[in-house]
Amino acid sequence: MKILDEGLNAPKGYISSGIFAGLKKKNRDMALIVSRQPASAAGAFTQNIVRAAPVEWDVEIIKSEKPVQAILINSGNANACTGKQGEVDTHAMAQRTAETLGYGHIGKDKVLVCSTGVIGVPLPMKEVHNGILEAVSHLGSSREHARQAAEAILTTDTFTKEIAVEIEIGGKPVRIAGIAKGSGMIHPNMATMLSFIITDACIHAPLLQKLLGESIQDSYNMISVDGDTSTNDTALALANGASDAPQIEEGSEDFNTFRKAFDYVNAYLAKQIVLDGEGASKFIEAWVQGAASKEDARLIVKSVITSNLVKTAFFGEDANWGRILCAMGYSGAQFDPKKTNLDISSASGSIRLLEAGTPVAFDESRAAEVLAEKALNISIELQDGDASATAWGCDLSYEYVKINGEYRT
Amino acid sequence: MKILDEGLNAPKGYISSGIFAGLKKKNRDMALIVSRQPASAAGAFTQNIVRAAPVEWDVEIIKSEKPVQAILINSGNANACTGKQGEVDTHAMAQRTAETLGYGHIGKDKVLVCSTGVIGVPLPMKEVHNGILEAVSHLGSSREHARQAAEAILTTDTFTKEIAVEIEIGGKPVRIAGIAKGSGMIHPNMATMLSFIITDACIHAPLLQKLLGESIQDSYNMISVDGDTSTNDTALALANGASDAPQIEEGSEDFNTFRKAFDYVNAYLAKQIVLDGEGASKFIEAWVQGAASKEDARLIVKSVITSNLVKTAFFGEDANWGRILCAMGYSGAQFDPKKTNLDISSASGSIRLLEAGTPVAFDESRAAEVLAEKALNISIELQDGDASATAWGCDLSYEYVKINGEYRT
Repeated sequence: MKILDEGLNAPKGYISSGIFAGLKKKNRDMALIVSRQPASAAGAFTQNIVRAAPVEWDVEIIKSEKPVQAILINSGNANACTGKQGEVDTHAMAQRTAETLGYGHIGKDKVLVCSTGVIGVPLPMKEVHNGILEAVSHLGSSREHARQAAEAILTTDTFTKEIAVEIEIGGKPVRIAGIAKGSGMIHPNMATMLSFIITDACIHAPLLQKLLGESIQDSYNMISVDGDTSTNDTALALANGASDAPQIEEGSEDFNTFRKAFDYVNAYLAKQIVLDGEGASKFIEAWVQGAASKEDARLIVKSVITSNLVKTAFFGEDANWGRILCAMGYSGAQFDPKKTNLDISSASGSIRLLEAGTPVAFDESRAAEVLAEKALNISIELQDGDASATAWGCDLSYEYVKINGEYRT
Repeated sequence: MKILDEGLNAPKGYISSGIFAGLKKKNRDMALIVSRQPASAAGAFTQNIVRAAPVEWDVEIIKSEKPVQAILINSGNANACTGKQGEVDTHAMAQRTAETLGYGHIGKDKVLVCSTGVIGVPLPMKEVHNGILEAVSHLGSSREHARQAAEAILTTDTFTKEIAVEIEIGGKPVRIAGIAKGSGMIHPNMATMLSFIITDACIHAPLLQKLLGESIQDSYNMISVDGDTSTNDTALALANGASDAPQIEEGSEDFNTFRKAFDYVNAYLAKQIVLDGEGASKFIEAWVQGAASKEDARLIVKSVITSNLVKTAFFGEDANWGRILCAMGYSGAQFDPKKTNLDISSASGSIRLLEAGTPVAFDESRAAEVLAEKALNISIELQDGDASATAWGCDLSYEYVKINGEYRT
């Protein structure tokens, strides 16, 4: 697998754009991703029962397993909790995009729609309609087009999240690319805030859906910024077959090659979201091995990286491992605390804090060195089975409180 | 029901003390509550599977349904995650207290032990042993003794939490009093951090246990400061019969009178804990009516007051109701967002934000006035059934991050 610095421009047969429509005060706020030919589509969506209007729209399209040609995304306004008007506006966005694109008179049910931003405020539809015209007129296939699309989906994010990889299927190069955005209300349950994966592989919608459903379990579903599951979480994947590589069939060697690359792309974007978590000054990876089951393993590491007390301890660079054990204890997973080992490590080294459930005396100045690094790893060893899992999170800082105390003002 | 300003001194037949043993840098850190005669005992404990040694000790005593005579509490050190040594130390504390009290040679299994403070550090047993001697020698029955006991159980709390009430059972006055402490790692599951209720009513242990088990569901279990369920959460209740009032039997009118007062005491202490939440500048009450079931009602309000995004919005005095609806949506409860009404009110008035799932235009300067108050109420009306519930929480402030980033240092 090769990593390409091409973003969404890597896979063949796609064009994209990112423009300023006036939904945010400044910066690009509307992105359009178009496949030149109909593409298989898959999606994973928030499990929050309060779902934004565009989420409801996309769910229906993905359920139909019919091919898709475009994804329209706006930032600055989530079109969530906007009642009947929200649904009308989403339909109008799909309709307007389909008409403006005009490719063989595609219907509005070929256009997926995503929104992110403030909740509860109706979309300013005049700006949205003009924005769609502009987004269509700016479509293109260059590195710069791809970057602008990645920029246009951001809200409080401080950097773009892009990745592209290349693999070989049946002797032909196949590319997978993705973009994503965070960076608050991030505690995905079945999908992340917004993530878009496109590939020129040839793969049928049901298999792509299965792959996506599995891939999110160990990527977006294993991150948390603040424990809040959004109303708009959406991960979408398109596959248009433009690589001319043979169709990917379940269980084949090609399937495994593709899955590995697909999982890599999703895990990469998930980690990027956490790295850019609101107010985050530390990147925290929690890894557990020896858990009784995969489910227990996931519960344990997810609980650790979600705990406000663990997060503030890392912000304070404090080796307060008792809070880690406490968060493991209320995770809902079964394990034997008396057989637990715990280490924290970083580029500056590693310290053992707990051995077989008993505290290990450690050098506080050594711990301070390890904890001063930006990227930290919590390593948990259990003796209850063979399962392992990794989760990613960030610290909880003054800046997080500031950003979220003043978000609307 | 009369409210008495007597704290633990109100019920007959108890003595108490609160002294400085040297477990904290300053301030009282060891409390002792003694019943002059054997008392029925009930307890509710953390559901965290990582439980401190004293919790394990108390669980066994409560399970036996045998009478109890004393509760020894230390602050400054939680005796949690301290391995085998933690168990040995807890047993030694009970033994030492029993011996020093000496009442008719009571055994160590008549002494409940609670610890709160830093996790993972062995107790300094020399200080603890000397502290027990001093706590016993200072026992007494005055308002001041009661206040000192309430002080000695605090950690990062900024004020004592005391309550006493008087009711009449069979023509005789009966008193119920309680003390509690917060103020971080507060997201109780079956019990609060530490809460001690004593009464001179006559009631058998199994019935007292049943009452406590029910009472915590709508008191301690409905509060959250930071979403972290502690390793040490404990609520204990003693009833020594010293009022000479008739025994309370289930289902009687006396039972209902007692239950009402008992529930009042627990709800009062639960709210006091939240009022003193770490770094809290706002007290937030969330109330729901019209939920499909009691369980749904509880899930909804608990989720709202636990959300970091709701908490930071209140800290920022921002009427960001979308975050409230979002937190309701991921609570796990079923409800119809399209039939939801939402109001926020305070001493400065009330504003309607959502009506039948549709945003209501509101005056931002009016909202700012309402939100400037310290005590705020979120009122949620559903149309899914008859169940209601109330939960209490606080905002998330810079101060919370500061306190918890620097807790050990």
